Amino acid sequence: MDISELGKFGLISHLTDHIQTSNPSTIKGLGDDAAVLEYKGKAVLLANNLLLEGIHFDLTYVALKFVGYKAATTCFSDIYAMNGQPRQLSVSMGISKRFSVETIDELFMGIEYACERYGVDLVGVNTYSSLTGLCIGVTVAGEADRDTIVYRNTAKNTDLICVSGDLGSAYMGLQLLEREKAVHTGETDFTPDFAGKEYLIERQLRPEARKDIVELLAQNRIMPTSMMDVSDGLASELLHICKQSNVGCVIYEERLPIDFQTAMMAEQFNMNLTTVALNGGDDYELLFTVPLHLHKEMQAIDGIHLIGHIVEPEENAHLIARDGTKIPLVAQGWTKQNKYKTENE
Amino acid sequence: MDISELGKFGLISHLTDHIQTSNPSTIKGLGDDAAVLEYKGKAVLLANNLLLEGIHFDLTYVALKFVGYKAATTCFSDIYAMNGQPRQLSVSMGISKRFSVETIDELFMGIEYACERYGVDLVGVNTYSSLTGLCIGVTVAGEADRDTIVYRNTAKNTDLICVSGDLGSAYMGLQLLEREKAVHTGETDFTPDFAGKEYLIERQLRPEARKDIVELLAQNRIMPTSMMDVSDGLASELLHICKQSNVGCVIYEERLPIDFQTAMMAEQFNMNLTTVALNGGDDYELLFTVPLHLHKEMQAIDGIHLIGHIVEPEENAHLIARDGTKIPLVAQGWTKQNKYKTENE
Repeated sequence: MDISELGKFGLISHLTDHIQTSNPSTIKGLGDDAAVLEYKGKAVLLANNLLLEGIHFDLTYVALKFVGYKAATTCFSDIYAMNGQPRQLSVSMGISKRFSVETIDELFMGIEYACERYGVDLVGVNTYSSLTGLCIGVTVAGEADRDTIVYRNTAKNTDLICVSGDLGSAYMGLQLLEREKAVHTGETDFTPDFAGKEYLIERQLRPEARKDIVELLAQNRIMPTSMMDVSDGLASELLHICKQSNVGCVIYEERLPIDFQTAMMAEQFNMNLTTVALNGGDDYELLFTVPLHLHKEMQAIDGIHLIGHIVEPEENAHLIARDGTKIPLVAQGWTKQNKYKTENE
Repeated sequence: MDISELGKFGLISHLTDHIQTSNPSTIKGLGDDAAVLEYKGKAVLLANNLLLEGIHFDLTYVALKFVGYKAATTCFSDIYAMNGQPRQLSVSMGISKRFSVETIDELFMGIEYACERYGVDLVGVNTYSSLTGLCIGVTVAGEADRDTIVYRNTAKNTDLICVSGDLGSAYMGLQLLEREKAVHTGETDFTPDFAGKEYLIERQLRPEARKDIVELLAQNRIMPTSMMDVSDGLASELLHICKQSNVGCVIYEERLPIDFQTAMMAEQFNMNLTTVALNGGDDYELLFTVPLHLHKEMQAIDGIHLIGHIVEPEENAHLIARDGTKIPLVAQGWTKQNKYKTENE
């Protein structure tokens, strides 16, 4: 169905009429100039992202439900990275003529599924026309106790550096998808075979926010000294924590958590595995620091990896390679002509 | 300066290092995964918009500082339309290679100026690359007393319908700008002469949010029964209030507030002035209803116009023309092939 048949308010109503809210902090969700929230004596966390077609997603190989899911979970990830709980999501979309009502439905299927899984209320939907492609603005509000919010600028000398899950797998998933796209150029309908590499594809297309890690830390009564989510790549984020906290860091190549499929694919693609893990991006794992005395407790928690420690600012940021060499840690940022790695948040 | 020289974090730091916060509800502004707000016992209002180049603004004739200003004020307008006060603003931008650091500075000049004028803290800035043009996602958080928030779905039979300021001037401003653009096609640098039409241009390029009206109503202890801001055009918004409140309405052509310059230009352009006032869009005035007994009080307030009243739902929505004819009120929505009128929120 052509979107113009519904009109703007018709489309919004079509997308949202069935949506209900469940968080007590959601006073009024959809359907007004603004959503109304209330957090008595709690802090409100606010984060917003933008996802642009051709930059953050390529509809040649990504179904819109995945785009929707990822748009939501990567925004939730920002709230978990503050040690908070996402509660409300508001979405604005710029939609070009190329998209039908059915395709936008599919996008919403992903958004709603993410909201459902993470207990988040969808409280705002705006639609606009776009001249070129699809553009999605997502805003999430979350709650937290003011004295347990974890910032980026509070890492301390001697703190342990921890990261959840594994690194580089989402990036390798992207490489796989890009290769398939190149191979099948010109074909309108192709079903690539990703047998044995499902994990990598899943990590790229349908990343989860690490709600479980935040819960695990709380259960173990561990309060990180600093935290952020890994969206641009470990190196970039770690340097960010160091700069903001005015500290240095040392991490160990051998301790970087890397999945078997990632290692296999890096070899196939003839890529340096450590570079992939350090700069891959789109991991959406949690990078955090904890006081040194929690060493044993941290080692006992499944799915969290100790990869190094914080040092004095004068010592800067380094990676200790497997052979013992000390290599300055450098972020591959926007300046590099690598579309993928540089544009993500 | 090329944006790639700064890199992503460099650009954000360049844009925001000097920014300070002043609202007590802003616990932590820029520089983390999310902004941290706290409203003890107050409600939080959350609104987000998207502005797309070519749809919401045309850089051939709009300076970026105006784009920034408008991006902010039109978002504040959503909070005032709930009878709240905007407090925090978060901005995400997709920026194509065509833009330099200086141009983004100009955009920010406008955003910051709006924040300053409206007492809003800038608490979030994200930048992304874009393949085509500039895309701006703005999110605003505001505060309100829970029992004085004004919704769209609470207009009652016999209520008076009021609108602030005047209607259609921003739309005529756009027509003027579009005409100048067409006349000067191909010229890279032209200075059009808008003498005597400054108000129309100002209304289009630099709209204000009606903070003053919200304050005026509070001073006069008047609490609207329903309210929304006029972004898509009076007819569309009024029908929206009627539908959501399950009521009908009658408005009077002769009471529509129209500026002299608007009337002059409509004649020059051979446009129906009432159509312009009803469907022009981009007015960012406040449309609201008040109980009938406040008739005298409302008439005494400068800058607020009584344009009609709410009726039973069975009577639907009508305009009473100057000659007494009763015309069904119709919104010109997305379905009409008018780029301008249909894409704004």
